[in-house]
Amino acid sequence: MSRLFEAHRALLDRAVAACRARTYWSAYPEVASGKIYGETARADGEAAFKALLGKPFDLDQPSEKRAGHEQSPFGLALGIDYPTASADTLIAASRKAGEAWAGASIEDRVGVCLEILQRINRASFLMANAVMHTTGQAFMMAFQAGGPHAQDRGLEAVAYAYDEMTRVPGAAEWSKPQGKGEPIVLDKQWRVVPRGVAFVIGCATFPTWNSYPAIFASLATGNSVIVKPHPAAILPLALTIKIAREAIAEAGFDPNVIVLAADDADAPIAKDFIIHPGVATIDFTGSPTFGAWVRENAATDLVFTEEAGINPIVIDSTGDFRGMCGNIAFSLSLYSGQMCTAPQNIFVPAGGIDTNDGHKSFDEVASSIATAIDKLLGEPERAAGILGAVANTATVDQVAKARKLGRVVRDSAPAPVTGFPEARTASPLVLAVDASDAAAWGEERFGPISFVIKTASTQESIALAADSTRRMGAITASLYSTGDKTIDAAADAFARSGVALSVNLTGGIYVNQSAAFSDYHVTGANPAGNACLTDAAYVANRFRIAMLRRQRAA
Amino acid sequence: MSRLFEAHRALLDRAVAACRARTYWSAYPEVASGKIYGETARADGEAAFKALLGKPFDLDQPSEKRAGHEQSPFGLALGIDYPTASADTLIAASRKAGEAWAGASIEDRVGVCLEILQRINRASFLMANAVMHTTGQAFMMAFQAGGPHAQDRGLEAVAYAYDEMTRVPGAAEWSKPQGKGEPIVLDKQWRVVPRGVAFVIGCATFPTWNSYPAIFASLATGNSVIVKPHPAAILPLALTIKIAREAIAEAGFDPNVIVLAADDADAPIAKDFIIHPGVATIDFTGSPTFGAWVRENAATDLVFTEEAGINPIVIDSTGDFRGMCGNIAFSLSLYSGQMCTAPQNIFVPAGGIDTNDGHKSFDEVASSIATAIDKLLGEPERAAGILGAVANTATVDQVAKARKLGRVVRDSAPAPVTGFPEARTASPLVLAVDASDAAAWGEERFGPISFVIKTASTQESIALAADSTRRMGAITASLYSTGDKTIDAAADAFARSGVALSVNLTGGIYVNQSAAFSDYHVTGANPAGNACLTDAAYVANRFRIAMLRRQRAA
Repeated sequence: MSRLFEAHRALLDRAVAACRARTYWSAYPEVASGKIYGETARADGEAAFKALLGKPFDLDQPSEKRAGHEQSPFGLALGIDYPTASADTLIAASRKAGEAWAGASIEDRVGVCLEILQRINRASFLMANAVMHTTGQAFMMAFQAGGPHAQDRGLEAVAYAYDEMTRVPGAAEWSKPQGKGEPIVLDKQWRVVPRGVAFVIGCATFPTWNSYPAIFASLATGNSVIVKPHPAAILPLALTIKIAREAIAEAGFDPNVIVLAADDADAPIAKDFIIHPGVATIDFTGSPTFGAWVRENAATDLVFTEEAGINPIVIDSTGDFRGMCGNIAFSLSLYSGQMCTAPQNIFVPAGGIDTNDGHKSFDEVASSIATAIDKLLGEPERAAGILGAVANTATVDQVAKARKLGRVVRDSAPAPVTGFPEARTASPLVLAVDASDAAAWGEERFGPISFVIKTASTQESIALAADSTRRMGAITASLYSTGDKTIDAAADAFARSGVALSVNLTGGIYVNQSAAFSDYHVTGANPAGNACLTDAAYVANRFRIAMLRRQRAA
Repeated sequence: MSRLFEAHRALLDRAVAACRARTYWSAYPEVASGKIYGETARADGEAAFKALLGKPFDLDQPSEKRAGHEQSPFGLALGIDYPTASADTLIAASRKAGEAWAGASIEDRVGVCLEILQRINRASFLMANAVMHTTGQAFMMAFQAGGPHAQDRGLEAVAYAYDEMTRVPGAAEWSKPQGKGEPIVLDKQWRVVPRGVAFVIGCATFPTWNSYPAIFASLATGNSVIVKPHPAAILPLALTIKIAREAIAEAGFDPNVIVLAADDADAPIAKDFIIHPGVATIDFTGSPTFGAWVRENAATDLVFTEEAGINPIVIDSTGDFRGMCGNIAFSLSLYSGQMCTAPQNIFVPAGGIDTNDGHKSFDEVASSIATAIDKLLGEPERAAGILGAVANTATVDQVAKARKLGRVVRDSAPAPVTGFPEARTASPLVLAVDASDAAAWGEERFGPISFVIKTASTQESIALAADSTRRMGAITASLYSTGDKTIDAAADAFARSGVALSVNLTGGIYVNQSAAFSDYHVTGANPAGNACLTDAAYVANRFRIAMLRRQRAA
């Protein structure tokens, strides 16, 4: 079985090195090109997706009933149902399968994980359709974020897990000197012992990207995994599990090393697993409300969460006003503001800002961002490609209600998608408010809702942004300033608030973007989440170390 | 300030290498020799200890009142009191001091930690007296376990913390190719952000050895530390804190980076800190009862515990019957069975065992262990040096009550200590019971109480020992067998139960002993504790990583 490890070893070594160097690297090509993925890959992927519609999903795992009523945000009902079973049944199957998996060598397990990732990579076009029609992401984003970028995040977790496990030596001779006497000699051996059953809860917007780190970190460290997708986005994870089970079975293990726990929104089952003493670790991506419930009620102490936050932009000054407005416009528009990394609060001093185009008043800054959004989304085909669709009807309702929260600088509007007349869409709503209107901007407003917030000064902007991060959480922060002292002050303030800071982004890179092997996603140091994807702490506690020491016969 | 880092760098590098290789290494000499510690060190240490008695302890830190009524298990009342204050006061002082400490470089902090350890090492004879007269350890054990071995454990934690923090690069250039266009270039920087205030709860038996890993792991990773000693063993940690504060202040930091939170048994204060939202991490050593309370009620999710367990010995067969009995006798006698690593349950098949001295019946095995204890403790001076005194009166009561739990194979008796007529002592009680008497052996019996348990077979012995480990926890397990298949089966069973296994110890090394830089103490994988001293998981989550990324100007 170490054949798989050898086959993928060069990639693994490169990934381990990339995690340490944190320069640019990617394993799986993000370009949706026929030259890379095969000339017929795009058509094949779409055909494979269509062939799944309206049928029971074929997954040979423990099953007591069927679940699943996914509805594409672009309009179509998927009509797919999935096998599912009670927590007791799935946990029992997972524990049983986990025994041999736990006993396998590090190399065997890591080899299987790398093989799974390669097979998932080959299915990237099918996955793109599955992600698009569950999350509402436009096709290209669904391909990249749901495919190669998610695969990179999975590989990153495998690399961290491998690196961490292999830092523990397999064996050592311990020889303690005894003065003039013979030394005491012990032969010691250490082995990795997994935690047990890992329960992974997926989200509705990035079902693969946000779950792969947990799935692969737990698998690689010897745990069996139960995946509970969001009821609105089951298909991408069901496909993942199907591919994984095939690779696991081919490698000679019980495929129940990974199982699907599907449910419907009106009959949720996550809590049955969360309070179950048979679950050893929980990885949760979702709302702070349910996240708090998970943290408080989980039977296990080992809970990793990514919840949500209110991501700030502080505008102090800029040497590229047009570039700044365009960059912010894109960040607010991309996937209709449904990324956990999308900005919500834009802090601007009441006295305006200095720019390469001269001084700009607060109102000019706000209206220039609005104009940049209008320009960006002026061409409908391009707009659809950026905005995609809105995953949840509640988000559209929130946008409607949010209009009352401030002065409308740019109104939200539907954004039709060619070929999908029923698509649920909404372009960015931008509101102007005062710093004192914290009731408006001081909590998470999920979706395409943002605030341009009038502050007394950049100093107040940084203080408010850092403080709201500490209280409500944030995953990203952004600053525009030409002043080094301001940049240093912001760097200190945001580091203390435990949030990654991007400075002066004006080109083709956006604050929303988090690159595997370089950007740590979430710090774990503010309420946006208690863990980071991926660092050593994310993997090191998923296994423990058992020692055997034998006295050497004299 | 990096001067301290440079001064101690060679030692640090050696310690980091030792953690990885896990062969024998020790930084601080365990031999209580005048040649190493200075010809007058022993006398000076005793004089310094005596000078502390009957006086207020001089510690210049936030104080609202005094606490402390320590009573030596060897008889004398220490008559020392210590400054203490409310949780609000100490946490506020700790947070304030923590700001500059958090902002210091990794090298500055690690340098200070290494300097503290060196100064503590120089005070090893004073510390030996302090540990002896709070815990009841005999002098030589108090010197070694309370001094150099504890210092080694502290250095190990610093080495792990340094290694983990420096795996994150300080900076990198991220350059993403853009086909034929110019690459996108971001300059990225990462910094370590500590969790905040670390609260460390010490125990009555190993106040330094069990607390140093937490104290030094948290300090090195930038957290400020509040230490709450067991009310029976304040002095060793008060001395530690005094030395640490001096080194911290000399390095230019607020000495409140570490403060003492002393209390009395009748007015405990730990809970005030545990439920306080200003505490970011908790390290607890103590009873499973209070440990469960800590895990359930802590305001923070980040809790590291070492609680307790019932450590098994499985006897299957031996090629050195006399060596085995002598080794077990020592393990049961050392510090009167008050080590968290001391064995409690000795499983022996009803049909007896094969040995180099021929077949031995169950009763012969039990009586031979009893005889070995009698021999070991036959000479009073030597007995006192091994047994020490009993830390807690409740333990003596437990020994008295335990006599009813089985057939007495060897009775417990007082063991007078020359020069200390009031010493509270108890030699090992050994009881024979059946495997079915789980009400007797199936729970923790703290102190010099052990059971020789009659099982149907070695297979049953291993199963019972592994199962009781899973249910009640265990820190050590021991096996005597000449059969490789039995050894392999036991290795698998105990690894699955998350306990370190020692095999065929007959010479001068004992199952109770856990060597820094080689033996992982506690696995974290059974109820004996949720963390390991020390592995990567023990340090990696004490800090988080904050990123700054800047777009390079075109």
